[in-house]
Amino acid sequence: MILYELAAADGRRFSPHCWKSRMSLAQVGIDAASERVGFMAIRRIGDGGFRRVPVLEDDGEFVDDSWQIAEHLDRLTNRALFPDDASRAFARFTEYWVTSLFTCIGRIVVPDIATIVCAEDHPYFEESRERWLGEPIDLLPLRRDDELAALRERLDPARRRLTEEPFLGGAGPTYSDFQLFGAFQWARVTSPVPLVAEEDPIHGWFQRCLDLYDGLGRREPGYDW
Amino acid sequence: MILYELAAADGRRFSPHCWKSRMSLAQVGIDAASERVGFMAIRRIGDGGFRRVPVLEDDGEFVDDSWQIAEHLDRLTNRALFPDDASRAFARFTEYWVTSLFTCIGRIVVPDIATIVCAEDHPYFEESRERWLGEPIDLLPLRRDDELAALRERLDPARRRLTEEPFLGGAGPTYSDFQLFGAFQWARVTSPVPLVAEEDPIHGWFQRCLDLYDGLGRREPGYDW
Repeated sequence: MILYELAAADGRRFSPHCWKSRMSLAQVGIDAASERVGFMAIRRIGDGGFRRVPVLEDDGEFVDDSWQIAEHLDRLTNRALFPDDASRAFARFTEYWVTSLFTCIGRIVVPDIATIVCAEDHPYFEESRERWLGEPIDLLPLRRDDELAALRERLDPARRRLTEEPFLGGAGPTYSDFQLFGAFQWARVTSPVPLVAEEDPIHGWFQRCLDLYDGLGRREPGYDW
Repeated sequence: MILYELAAADGRRFSPHCWKSRMSLAQVGIDAASERVGFMAIRRIGDGGFRRVPVLEDDGEFVDDSWQIAEHLDRLTNRALFPDDASRAFARFTEYWVTSLFTCIGRIVVPDIATIVCAEDHPYFEESRERWLGEPIDLLPLRRDDELAALRERLDPARRRLTEEPFLGGAGPTYSDFQLFGAFQWARVTSPVPLVAEEDPIHGWFQRCLDLYDGLGRREPGYDW
């Protein structure tokens, strides 16, 4: 198998969606080579029909979209990712909940990402992110502290859950954890600004996630927070 | 069994937490009498040690706190509420997520609740809610439209989930649904302001919840929204 993953000019992988798939592969024990692509290179995957990553190539079959990849891995492994309907329902809900944090996180990390994407990706990145966030990238750092405060408040459901269990799903990591991990890894790989304070229970959880699978997440270049 | 439930002067039950327990009892098929109490009457339950409702009295045993009541009912019914660990994990997460909406909803409904609580409850209600919300109840309606807009934005994870399934948990209602239902019923029973627009998928879900168990929720006096 090959996982096509979004990468910066120096190869570091920063996409929250790709990290969901990378962690899921590790969780179900499947090895998949990493093919790193910039935004412009996505159109060169397979028959040229893909517009976003992750894309998983499995014996000539291409699966795109992180959720479809999760379902594909679940089928291959006798429900190793979603052992029951409730775990899938939980993961659907947290998919949307984590996505609802993306504008806030984007406003914090996009200025830093703009400095590390491949040269050929830069015009697309700047144009698409300014459209998404509704203002010039250069202005975003002016309100970074406000965004950080808003994000920390919005993280409260995860924070409270993680005071009672090591992972969102309980004793061990679940796909719901990989979703939030993806969002945090997006920031850790690209931005020196820690999303949460060290005393936050979410900080401890993120360190646990970075340690999983022989430090798969921690080995990725990024900031030490 | 007897469920002690918070009630207004005219007997209508408006506590979001009590509605979680009332719906759970119906879901697992247990009949429990309703003992309606105002805030001041809570201290007259059992041996006088309770400070909040719901309280469930089961054959001389008293269980307080909606989550403890859910666990109690789950044990009594061979895991009818939480059939697997993932459904409990999901419910823990949504407990905190729904709770994170309470300040917003409180700012919308508290002025209306202040007009319907029992006379002996009024001083306590006013003092405790002003402390919680940080301002005089009379001022809250001034920013009601802003709170409503913020709430609707925050409901996005549920909205998106409910475009793909009839209930948060999937095909049928789960404890996660009862948590969000409790928050909506708190508002419907007390306030003429609909929390969501009619075209919102959450509106359709709330109507489905009101219809459950022979219209248990709908039979409670309230507003038609």
